[in-house]
Amino acid sequence: QMPRGNLETIHHRALVLAQLRKWLDGLRFKDAFECMRKLRINLNLIYDHNPSVFLDNIEMFLKQIDSINHINLFLTELKEEDTTTTMYPSPLRSDSSSASGKGGKKVDIVCDALRSTMETLDPQKYCLCILTSHVKKTAPELEIALQKVHELRVNPPSGSNSVNAEEALKYLLFLVNVNELYEHSLGTYDFDLVLMVAEKSQKDPKEYLPFLNMLKTMELNYQRYTIDKHLKRYRKALHHLSKCGEEHFTELLNLVKDQKLYSDALELYPSDSEQYKTLSVAYGEHLVEQQQAEQAGLLLWRCGETARALQAFVSCTSWRHALAVATHIPLPPEQLALLARDLAEKLLEARRHREAALCLEQYAKDCEEAISALIQGAAWEEALRLIYLYNRQDIIETNLKSALLDAHSNQTSFLESQKALFIRHKNRLAVVRELKAKAKLELFDEDGADCADAELYSEASSVLTGSHLGSKYSRSNSRISSRSSKNRRKAEGKKHSLKEGSPFEDIALLNALIQIITIVDKMREEVHSLLKALVLFQFDGPASSLQRNYSDLLQLMETALPEIWSENLQQGQTPLTGPNSTANSIMASFQQQRPAVPQQDMEALTAPKMRNTIKWKLSILK
Amino acid sequence: QMPRGNLETIHHRALVLAQLRKWLDGLRFKDAFECMRKLRINLNLIYDHNPSVFLDNIEMFLKQIDSINHINLFLTELKEEDTTTTMYPSPLRSDSSSASGKGGKKVDIVCDALRSTMETLDPQKYCLCILTSHVKKTAPELEIALQKVHELRVNPPSGSNSVNAEEALKYLLFLVNVNELYEHSLGTYDFDLVLMVAEKSQKDPKEYLPFLNMLKTMELNYQRYTIDKHLKRYRKALHHLSKCGEEHFTELLNLVKDQKLYSDALELYPSDSEQYKTLSVAYGEHLVEQQQAEQAGLLLWRCGETARALQAFVSCTSWRHALAVATHIPLPPEQLALLARDLAEKLLEARRHREAALCLEQYAKDCEEAISALIQGAAWEEALRLIYLYNRQDIIETNLKSALLDAHSNQTSFLESQKALFIRHKNRLAVVRELKAKAKLELFDEDGADCADAELYSEASSVLTGSHLGSKYSRSNSRISSRSSKNRRKAEGKKHSLKEGSPFEDIALLNALIQIITIVDKMREEVHSLLKALVLFQFDGPASSLQRNYSDLLQLMETALPEIWSENLQQGQTPLTGPNSTANSIMASFQQQRPAVPQQDMEALTAPKMRNTIKWKLSILK
Repeated sequence: QMPRGNLETIHHRALVLAQLRKWLDGLRFKDAFECMRKLRINLNLIYDHNPSVFLDNIEMFLKQIDSINHINLFLTELKEEDTTTTMYPSPLRSDSSSASGKGGKKVDIVCDALRSTMETLDPQKYCLCILTSHVKKTAPELEIALQKVHELRVNPPSGSNSVNAEEALKYLLFLVNVNELYEHSLGTYDFDLVLMVAEKSQKDPKEYLPFLNMLKTMELNYQRYTIDKHLKRYRKALHHLSKCGEEHFTELLNLVKDQKLYSDALELYPSDSEQYKTLSVAYGEHLVEQQQAEQAGLLLWRCGETARALQAFVSCTSWRHALAVATHIPLPPEQLALLARDLAEKLLEARRHREAALCLEQYAKDCEEAISALIQGAAWEEALRLIYLYNRQDIIETNLKSALLDAHSNQTSFLESQKALFIRHKNRLAVVRELKAKAKLELFDEDGADCADAELYSEASSVLTGSHLGSKYSRSNSRISSRSSKNRRKAEGKKHSLKEGSPFEDIALLNALIQIITIVDKMREEVHSLLKALVLFQFDGPASSLQRNYSDLLQLMETALPEIWSENLQQGQTPLTGPNSTANSIMASFQQQRPAVPQQDMEALTAPKMRNTIKWKLSILK
Repeated sequence: QMPRGNLETIHHRALVLAQLRKWLDGLRFKDAFECMRKLRINLNLIYDHNPSVFLDNIEMFLKQIDSINHINLFLTELKEEDTTTTMYPSPLRSDSSSASGKGGKKVDIVCDALRSTMETLDPQKYCLCILTSHVKKTAPELEIALQKVHELRVNPPSGSNSVNAEEALKYLLFLVNVNELYEHSLGTYDFDLVLMVAEKSQKDPKEYLPFLNMLKTMELNYQRYTIDKHLKRYRKALHHLSKCGEEHFTELLNLVKDQKLYSDALELYPSDSEQYKTLSVAYGEHLVEQQQAEQAGLLLWRCGETARALQAFVSCTSWRHALAVATHIPLPPEQLALLARDLAEKLLEARRHREAALCLEQYAKDCEEAISALIQGAAWEEALRLIYLYNRQDIIETNLKSALLDAHSNQTSFLESQKALFIRHKNRLAVVRELKAKAKLELFDEDGADCADAELYSEASSVLTGSHLGSKYSRSNSRISSRSSKNRRKAEGKKHSLKEGSPFEDIALLNALIQIITIVDKMREEVHSLLKALVLFQFDGPASSLQRNYSDLLQLMETALPEIWSENLQQGQTPLTGPNSTANSIMASFQQQRPAVPQQDMEALTAPKMRNTIKWKLSILK
């Protein structure tokens, strides 16, 4: 070949990479490495190009490179990044090359693989590289590296080409910050090593020697605990402290509390020990503060702290556990009854009437209050069961019948209000949709740009009145009230406004309609149970009217579903296509629709499911 | 104007209709009527053109027409159809004209309105028209018409232009079939009227006279009952029969049973009467046959038939009612206990463990069985409560702990199987989607028509194995088994097949994924309760592993949601738009997408909601 002058030194990167890939495929690591070093190409490529081939041929790699410095260079340049996807994407990317994600981090995989090969080949020769491989891991293994340096010192290697402890430590200090290394040397609990590092550092011996001397006077475990605590390794500190005997338990308890190491501490003691109990109590107090009283109760109960457990369970109305502990203690009958009444009161506040009734019946032995709770909670069948179980038929006349009629009138007026609201929203939706359709047509109609919209809106608005009708009916004593208030809260949470003329009024109306349908649909079981109770006490008239009203309302909703949620609602309003549409007009109508339906509103565009399989009607009523 | 020959008699319909509308708007009914009669235009238009105007001007209409025959003609031509929308659509349709749907049927509205006006103006003159208006109603009022004829006979009108009974009857016979009229005359219970009609008919007196004579000998109510029964008017028959005294009660009971008039019959007797009870028992038997045993029980209980009521309640496992009746009777303790055991067994079969436990505890007084039922139903807290309430801590060691560990391993393996299935479906979905996208691109790519699809599919298929993995795990004793079998049944109900390569495999996969997510998400409460119980008995290890597994699986699903249900899934796959698209290509891609997503599959395209607000994790576990 003839000399070709300056051009020789200019390298087209694609050509170079192609050549590198060829070399790497041919396992010519040396050539590749030299070239990459010269042209400053990231050395990660050696691994990234084909991870499995590299890992299978590490020995060959080491033998070809054959330079401690070069191997260290390769190790220090390792990064998690896959250079074949970021810096040097291959034009002919084979699918198999993305093997980087095969479990574990790349840097750690390469470090570990190289080290294990080097340790097999010649640990003395590769000493510094082995140290590098420890230090470069994503979680640097400084202790192990230090340990190896320490070994070199204790057993100096005999080989001619071997590194001595001094050199190795110097090299480490070159890789790692000296203070960090000192701390980690402390962590090995090996004072020789500590001194070795300390001497190499610029630290003042007056600073570290007193500390080291003090440590040396301590009992082994307490010494290690002190070091761990100094290094903020609290878990290890806890572990060592736990071996220091009972006289240090208070210190341990404080450590646990300070560092919130409760579950770690519990693992260190047998569950029947005094310490376990003390730790559990501390943990329990902590959990109660964290609003985790039930879990506190469980921990306290299982270590025998029944009184504290009871307190914890009561505080979070974990009534079953509370009563179980109370009978486990066992509480004297009067106190048990008081406890049960206390729990029942909380449960009633939370509208958990059946559970309250159980407390009152079984523990407070007050069947009258229990029945009253059930009646209050519209649990008619259960109330009736207790009435006959305790032979208290008098309650039927004094309470049950009037409660049934109250519930009937509450349900009736609630249904009425929901019906009115449903019809109002439905009608308004039709108006809004018509207005939107008109507005859209005008957008595409090039002639008509008369801004009559504002007027149209205000005209349509005048049909309707102000506030929610529903709230007017929400003062009933049955379950309805909690339901409708939940409904209101939910409605407030929604971001679109029902206010007339607001930009997403249609979405807001759809959401409101879904809510009404869902609430009314959910009443099937409640109505069914009320109907049965009414029939049992000969209130056939009210029962029939309720059945008719409810059935009519469900029918009204069922019929309205296809009208409100029409077929093409979800695909956006009908795309404007037809004989006069152009590619542009169609696209315009699309771009217009897209932002109108963000993901969070998708559910408003899906018709709610009505649970028509649930049979609630009584065939004996007309 | 000059004569214009034959053309005079040819009428362009549009012109005629325009003229008619003008006349009707000007209240010139006479002109309109004459013209319509001549040109055979449907007379309904007179009303349909503007219903409210017509109804407001009936008197003017009658006075202008002023012919009994013409008014009858108008009445007999009335139809429900709105001719302005069907036969004679107006070119300039004003929105208000669709007033036809303003409650009630059109024919009835017009008949009633005309009649009331005619009766005010001159009932004698309009006699025949009034009869027509009765007969033409959608439910012909033949009795009223006949009654009017009868009145004419009893009090012959004095006016010169008045119609006599003979003429009126003849006219009626012209409108209505003679046999029908005879039957209805019977229905008036007026034998004079019957005879009058019978004489006019071609009926053989030998045929009807004996019947009439027999009727005449009867007591009034029984006579009417017999007539009603003859006319198949069973409700009226029942009513009259109920007035005939106790000696006819058996006949009444048979009538009620034959015609299933139970609720009508019950209304005729006071609820404390013997008949009421007998009818209730009959009704109860009927309801039990109709699989309405609970309602039967209610009816039987309220009339005091407690034993039968109990039987009915037991037969449908209405256990609360059954036990209430049983204590109402009251059943002796041993029998009550047996009953409770019987009910508990049924409840256990239905996997209603808590209810079964209540029966066993409170009525069979068998706390051991009750606790066992609760353990079987994974109601750990409730089981524990009873264990301590009845001081049976021995059960903790003998049953509870092993049941907890069993439940733990069942849950664990169930979660594992669901995870495997989820991943399998998810991966397969990705494959199917890729294949579909490729197939679609090929459809629009005019060059590539190489049918490589079949091969691609079969290649992808080979990755996967045969049957559902889930079924393998469904033999556990906890709630899981019933759940997964329900799941399987549900899956079978779906119409799309999960079979590889089936046309809607993607939809089927989405449905399957939704099911898995829903089932796993529903386990939050169950897992929470199990975790607490495990912790209480120091099984921290199993509890931690379960918490980790479940948490991981939920996390896996949560992360997969946006990938599986991506933003543009619901708008169909991304419409093929871009610099190279044309109006036709865009439309083509639309028409292609539409049928691919029928309404019933819409739910598969919506990501299921995960109940992330439900806190199930224990913070004390790692």
